[in-house]
Amino acid sequence: MKLALCQVNTIIGDLEFNKSKIIEGYNKAVRDNVDLIIFPELALVGYPPQDLVEKKEFREAVYKASEEIAIITGETAVLFGSITENDSLTGTDVHNSALLCFNGKIQFIQHKTLIPNYDVFDEMRYFDMAHETYTFDFKGERLGISICEDIWNDEDYWYKRRYNIDPVKSLIEKGSTVLINISASPYAYHKREDRHKMLSVLTKQDKIPLAYVCTVGAQTDLIFDGASMCFDNNGNLVMLGKAYEEDYFIFDTNRKYEEIVNSENSFEDEILNALIYGLREYCNKLNFKKVVVGLSGGIDSALVTYIAVKALGRDCVHVILMPSQYSSEGSVTHSEKLISNLGISSANISIQPVVDKINEMLEETFHNMPQGVTEENIQARVRGLYLMAISNKYNYLLLTTGNKSEMAVGYCTLYGDMSGGLAVIADVYKTDVYRLAKYINIKEEIIPFEIITKPPSAELRPGQKDQDSLPEYVLLDKILKMYLEENKEISEISHEIGDEKIIKYVLRLVDINEYKRRQAAPALRVSTKAFGYGRRYPIVQGWRR
Amino acid sequence: MKLALCQVNTIIGDLEFNKSKIIEGYNKAVRDNVDLIIFPELALVGYPPQDLVEKKEFREAVYKASEEIAIITGETAVLFGSITENDSLTGTDVHNSALLCFNGKIQFIQHKTLIPNYDVFDEMRYFDMAHETYTFDFKGERLGISICEDIWNDEDYWYKRRYNIDPVKSLIEKGSTVLINISASPYAYHKREDRHKMLSVLTKQDKIPLAYVCTVGAQTDLIFDGASMCFDNNGNLVMLGKAYEEDYFIFDTNRKYEEIVNSENSFEDEILNALIYGLREYCNKLNFKKVVVGLSGGIDSALVTYIAVKALGRDCVHVILMPSQYSSEGSVTHSEKLISNLGISSANISIQPVVDKINEMLEETFHNMPQGVTEENIQARVRGLYLMAISNKYNYLLLTTGNKSEMAVGYCTLYGDMSGGLAVIADVYKTDVYRLAKYINIKEEIIPFEIITKPPSAELRPGQKDQDSLPEYVLLDKILKMYLEENKEISEISHEIGDEKIIKYVLRLVDINEYKRRQAAPALRVSTKAFGYGRRYPIVQGWRR
Repeated sequence: MKLALCQVNTIIGDLEFNKSKIIEGYNKAVRDNVDLIIFPELALVGYPPQDLVEKKEFREAVYKASEEIAIITGETAVLFGSITENDSLTGTDVHNSALLCFNGKIQFIQHKTLIPNYDVFDEMRYFDMAHETYTFDFKGERLGISICEDIWNDEDYWYKRRYNIDPVKSLIEKGSTVLINISASPYAYHKREDRHKMLSVLTKQDKIPLAYVCTVGAQTDLIFDGASMCFDNNGNLVMLGKAYEEDYFIFDTNRKYEEIVNSENSFEDEILNALIYGLREYCNKLNFKKVVVGLSGGIDSALVTYIAVKALGRDCVHVILMPSQYSSEGSVTHSEKLISNLGISSANISIQPVVDKINEMLEETFHNMPQGVTEENIQARVRGLYLMAISNKYNYLLLTTGNKSEMAVGYCTLYGDMSGGLAVIADVYKTDVYRLAKYINIKEEIIPFEIITKPPSAELRPGQKDQDSLPEYVLLDKILKMYLEENKEISEISHEIGDEKIIKYVLRLVDINEYKRRQAAPALRVSTKAFGYGRRYPIVQGWRR
Repeated sequence: MKLALCQVNTIIGDLEFNKSKIIEGYNKAVRDNVDLIIFPELALVGYPPQDLVEKKEFREAVYKASEEIAIITGETAVLFGSITENDSLTGTDVHNSALLCFNGKIQFIQHKTLIPNYDVFDEMRYFDMAHETYTFDFKGERLGISICEDIWNDEDYWYKRRYNIDPVKSLIEKGSTVLINISASPYAYHKREDRHKMLSVLTKQDKIPLAYVCTVGAQTDLIFDGASMCFDNNGNLVMLGKAYEEDYFIFDTNRKYEEIVNSENSFEDEILNALIYGLREYCNKLNFKKVVVGLSGGIDSALVTYIAVKALGRDCVHVILMPSQYSSEGSVTHSEKLISNLGISSANISIQPVVDKINEMLEETFHNMPQGVTEENIQARVRGLYLMAISNKYNYLLLTTGNKSEMAVGYCTLYGDMSGGLAVIADVYKTDVYRLAKYINIKEEIIPFEIITKPPSAELRPGQKDQDSLPEYVLLDKILKMYLEENKEISEISHEIGDEKIIKYVLRLVDINEYKRRQAAPALRVSTKAFGYGRRYPIVQGWRR
């Protein structure tokens, strides 16, 4: 059977746009004389549609668009993801479904069976599960169609499974000769290799070829990397879609292909590409042509600026230097070197006169209370105010530059350096920020050497260093990863780290700063546990306090 | 059977605190010689515990605390909500359970069957459902124990049901003689009357008495109003717990009681009490002694200040007047009248010198571009900066004063008037803000008459009025309520309103300002659909654009 895989980049809720993508792909498939063209999960509505599916008028518009796709089909079939109405008197409004259309009609519908409801997934809020799985006979083959999570519950692969049923196993038992899975699987490092391994075990075990069609694109904070996969009936990965861009390719289940061994690149390569893509997508979909970044002379803003240049081009990145009386000379000279290396435009606006005026105005209210965090925050907030003013005036998107380690322990100022529309590296630990900077410099010095080697500092008081108030980043990140990514607590972490006092200190900082993160800009997600939607903690809580 | 109902106010995750509340109540029940004392849903862990339950160390601490409660019990039994481990090889980590303890042991456990996963509820993320319901025979009665949502699916009451099973019906069929439901039911106006009606139909139909024990307290944005209820076997509400405070009372299922007809007060009374309670709770649980509010001379900040005084006392509320060149005379004089009426402390700090300095510093960057929203936002942000500085310096909690109508259409400045730790009235429509202000003034003028009657204005440019850019609030709120609360779309709303153009305009404003709300402070929830956790929309989406 000749299949076309079409990994499209959709816009959530933009039914006209998404429908035309599907029809365009379909017409190409007809010209290529394929039997069936396959689009990703929820390709017609975009993923995740969230509460949009609770609106009747939206659902009706989707059903109309589905029919409009079906009606143009001939002998070549199209399979795409969409929602379908749940007619039952109980349960949610819709199913998450795969619709198979040919000869002018929707011929077959398979609903999703396993409904993920963990981390960033909220699907049980919206989607009623399928109560049965069916195969469909088409052009001499028996198609076993499943949707995303349905294929992530193989008992040969997982030790502890989330669900006690396996819809793909059931499709195989019903005699499927070709497996198809349509997916929307957000990226984090190692995820692609996981998919590769898991699907390889499945197709090898059951000796059935598989077309695994993924969505691509970024939806606010979620990055979908594409990289659709085809496996032969020996468990070999034989075709691999492009990562971080749309793709269309043909998979003939009866042809012999060479095995593809590597599906994922290095950590640095993948994460940088994911962040560049995520930023470009956010700007494109919200129609921002240019971005503005506050350049401090530190490594975080340098990395974000580099990513912005790669995402949008040097002409679309404008940086602002905002020195104060506490700024080191390097904060300007190192920034200027970066500006020259990247060839971008910049402005230098001192915050000092405004900070002085604010301190003067607040003098009476503050009497002679000692200076401290308040005054540090004022500096950060004047910078935030400048940047937002420039963002407002020129319609540039302001990028925030905080990293994950800072966000975790609250080493950042609300309405100050946290100001902005998108947090580009807020899911990247500080130690990984260094790793990425060094990787960028492999061929030539782009991020000035001095920026990488000098001790990190917020420069909000004389001689301040990050390590005055935080453990060394290597240790901090080790603790944070165990706490955040592996859900470990004090006793489990101290088993590996030793010093319980420092662990308690870090974990407490993470907990009490939940209130800051609640007001943070959306952060591009590249880890298995990012702050934001996928991690839900009460602001008011007393565990371990 | 002699039951004690103990509606406690717990702290999420603070197991020692919650355990001691339960033990304290238990000891009182022993002295009162009751058969069984009942605590609310998840009383030991607090509700909602969110991702805390994903931590093994947390779960183990909970199980230990449960045992510590059980071990102190004698003949008098205690029933309380907690989590219990899900031993199955599939599914989530825990159940949401009711634990019945006496004679030193956990004697019986009933898991929750219906797991709500809509609006603010995310329970399927955490809790595996019960696969069976059991009754328990105790002191001559057969107890039918259920948890919150379990009792919200009665087919005699609901036309369309969420679930196709009814655990309470099953308990009744198994011969229950006393029904018990332990709950954590967040408040919105009319909710108490809903509970009253629904439970009345149930107990009347099935001729069984019911003890319905609710949690009380506020957990960040969610307000639990308490008001536990007892029904006799004729469907009469015969006992009603206090609203917005802890309570303990005894219900003898064999005694005759007078019927209580009214369970809920007026809209104004309930909403004000809920907001006062919610604010007090947030301060108490985060250990803030005092709050600061920016007083503009408008009705929103006046209402918030009044609520703060009621919540914390006049000595704990400090207000700041921050006039600019565009401020009307009334902005100061009306505020001063309110300050005097409430007897609170205040400061007056002009923003003009700082605004002027900022404009001067940005002059070169802005060339001669026309003034506009940028300059308006600068003023709002300088006010936010002042307020945050005072909040930081004195450790006062900054309250934001925006209302729901403003938040809906984005008529507010990110990092400006949106700054603060808690949004007190962000779930109250502007027209309801007026309604509450008039109610407050019933006996005497507390909120100055001029504040209520003058046309609303942000005073960020000469002669500015809200209605320059927005429809009249009566119309706006009508559209917003249909869109937000009733999930209606353009065609359905225009059916009632007529003018499709204005509806499109308003709905578009709501949609494109999702990015602002994503960075908003948590808002006390008093409606059936508040912004925040219970309403999930993509920032990047193309429906209806």
